[in-house]
Amino acid sequence: MELAEIREPDQPGFTRRLFSDAYRTSRARVAEWMAGAGLAVSTDSVGNLFGQLTGAEPGLAPIVVGSHTDTVAGGGRFDGTVGVLGAIELARLIREAGLELRHPLRVADFLGEEPNRFGLSCLGSRAVAGQLSPGHLDLKDGRGQTLGAALGAAGTHPEELAQALWGEGSIHCYLELHIEQGRSLERSLARLGVVTVIAGISRAVIRVSGRQDHAGTTTMADRRDALAAAAETVLLVERLAQGDGSDESGVGTVGRLEVSPGATNVVPGGATLWAEFRSSSPGWLDRRQPALEAGLAELGARRGVELSSEWVSAEPPTLCAASIRDAIGEAITQLGEPALELISGASHDAVHLAHLGPMGMIFIPSREGRSHCPEEWTDPDQVATGVAALLATVLRLDGQERL
Amino acid sequence: MELAEIREPDQPGFTRRLFSDAYRTSRARVAEWMAGAGLAVSTDSVGNLFGQLTGAEPGLAPIVVGSHTDTVAGGGRFDGTVGVLGAIELARLIREAGLELRHPLRVADFLGEEPNRFGLSCLGSRAVAGQLSPGHLDLKDGRGQTLGAALGAAGTHPEELAQALWGEGSIHCYLELHIEQGRSLERSLARLGVVTVIAGISRAVIRVSGRQDHAGTTTMADRRDALAAAAETVLLVERLAQGDGSDESGVGTVGRLEVSPGATNVVPGGATLWAEFRSSSPGWLDRRQPALEAGLAELGARRGVELSSEWVSAEPPTLCAASIRDAIGEAITQLGEPALELISGASHDAVHLAHLGPMGMIFIPSREGRSHCPEEWTDPDQVATGVAALLATVLRLDGQERL
Repeated sequence: MELAEIREPDQPGFTRRLFSDAYRTSRARVAEWMAGAGLAVSTDSVGNLFGQLTGAEPGLAPIVVGSHTDTVAGGGRFDGTVGVLGAIELARLIREAGLELRHPLRVADFLGEEPNRFGLSCLGSRAVAGQLSPGHLDLKDGRGQTLGAALGAAGTHPEELAQALWGEGSIHCYLELHIEQGRSLERSLARLGVVTVIAGISRAVIRVSGRQDHAGTTTMADRRDALAAAAETVLLVERLAQGDGSDESGVGTVGRLEVSPGATNVVPGGATLWAEFRSSSPGWLDRRQPALEAGLAELGARRGVELSSEWVSAEPPTLCAASIRDAIGEAITQLGEPALELISGASHDAVHLAHLGPMGMIFIPSREGRSHCPEEWTDPDQVATGVAALLATVLRLDGQERL
Repeated sequence: MELAEIREPDQPGFTRRLFSDAYRTSRARVAEWMAGAGLAVSTDSVGNLFGQLTGAEPGLAPIVVGSHTDTVAGGGRFDGTVGVLGAIELARLIREAGLELRHPLRVADFLGEEPNRFGLSCLGSRAVAGQLSPGHLDLKDGRGQTLGAALGAAGTHPEELAQALWGEGSIHCYLELHIEQGRSLERSLARLGVVTVIAGISRAVIRVSGRQDHAGTTTMADRRDALAAAAETVLLVERLAQGDGSDESGVGTVGRLEVSPGATNVVPGGATLWAEFRSSSPGWLDRRQPALEAGLAELGARRGVELSSEWVSAEPPTLCAASIRDAIGEAITQLGEPALELISGASHDAVHLAHLGPMGMIFIPSREGRSHCPEEWTDPDQVATGVAALLATVLRLDGQERL
């Protein structure tokens, strides 16, 4: 709640976006809390924030536990934040209980997990996992600033991107505590979930080119209305996500739509849509692209407008490691709770950390499944139960040699 | 072409919007051209620009000929401009030919005819016709500035709004030369059109309130997607304008759509649409409102979203005066051209001038019917023919006592 007070004043809800003053200020507070929990605080060349606890056997690879503290515009207080603050609390509990882990424990607050104005999410976790290339630093925002320039202006050193890299096998495991952002836990009355797979995402930017005309003098038959074609595209994405007769499923969203020129008395000549599909089934996800392309071709021919799609990202579903899933499940059972196996519809820093070593996630409930909005809520005792599960899991994994 | 060079540098096409530097600069040029044609130049309290030629019988009410010189964003070079510059050319021709009218001739460049950020078009012609009330001056733009404040900042005196008023019967007649902005003249191969009626316009702002949710974790069945509902609304407006089985017809457009929060990974919680219907048939226009309301109610109930419509303007169709139509028709015949009777799908300053006295309009062709876009085009000889028709019409009307 204290971190949530640090927010962008001109934005709704609890907003701390990448490169905002609020985000910078809030992370200084997180660093203080890390230090207060006895962690050695450091940052890397791209702006990730770490707090490390020495292990009894310093030669071992660290157990990494983390998430992010940035938010979407108009976001809530729990997405990401419970993972970072929960990991700090985990470290505090370990020290307070006089426990000593064999492995070092690294608490991570990864830079900029949410989508940003450069169109690339999970900047920090991509960087440590080698998924952020120098080419990505040339991505531009709407005003022409590059991601590299924005990182530099924020005081990081993107030119030393390679120094942020951890390397494959450099971690014992990665754990992330996160709110579910869906309704499965709430509906089943379970308090803890074991994530089995993180949904893959395919994103497309769809550009519609019609003809700009006077809205009073152009007959309905003569029009090539880009917005009407865009409206059909929104409904096409929705329809394609509502199932294809197979047992697999997913979701599809157009979250953003811009119309040009956007005047009441002008038939729109252009429109741009940002669409995405997500699924835990690689096959379902793979079938969306040709289905959307076919729909756009039919629509364009029928309306006399041009529709082009650019697939800007295609991330396949990511499986959580069986060894970590087992450890989380046993830890939850040990706490006397039922362990519900869940799919994560949202993507997470964990997707990138999975390139470095075995990865797993623990979910706690989201009231009414709400997320990415100010109403996002998880009860304090549910957060505490999540941290308890994290602790029990870390203790199990710390005792195992190979995961 | 010279006026078209004065445009907003950061906008596409030929853009001179109300309150822009380009608009201010361009009107200073128009004033110079008025003076050069021997007209006595003046402005009124709201920023209308006039050039007057004395008549032989100064007690008579003036023949007013005009239009506007502002444009939409990304607009063209002819809409409005040919009416103002054509009227100056008309005055020049009259003086050069040594003719003297009985009535004074008033050339008018009315302020801000196009829709603006305050949502009120035809500011100048409304003001002279008593259709601009002090309440309109309180209209606010997106940043909270009032129309009155913007007018004041532009150097006009909106507090003296009443001084701009002409009063009913204060004009002998009003004439406006304008590009058709449609394809009727081009398709019929006629070069001059007599407008019979100017279409009425009903405008609504439609607000969609759904639920903002995470795009990865909210199942398709659980969504209340405001953009999907807005997309159906766009297609509903289109369908309602495609005919209702009656002989009457009209057009319907959604020219502007805004989505909130507008992020790729968030199910949109809100959307706002700006919709309009236009028709020369009062009955057709009247039937759109209940039809749209019924459609929105069905859509809202089916999708679990709230849709509300606010009808921000409802202008009935405006008939051109029979006396003026006859005079224009005879003038065109006198030039050896066929006189095609036309409906104006676009609204014009003439709609407001019709409150003050008999009004008529002359149309010249628009290539491919294109307008409100940079491709807007009318051949120079077609503009000249339009001015010739204007001159022949003015000479006829000047000789008549009552119209």
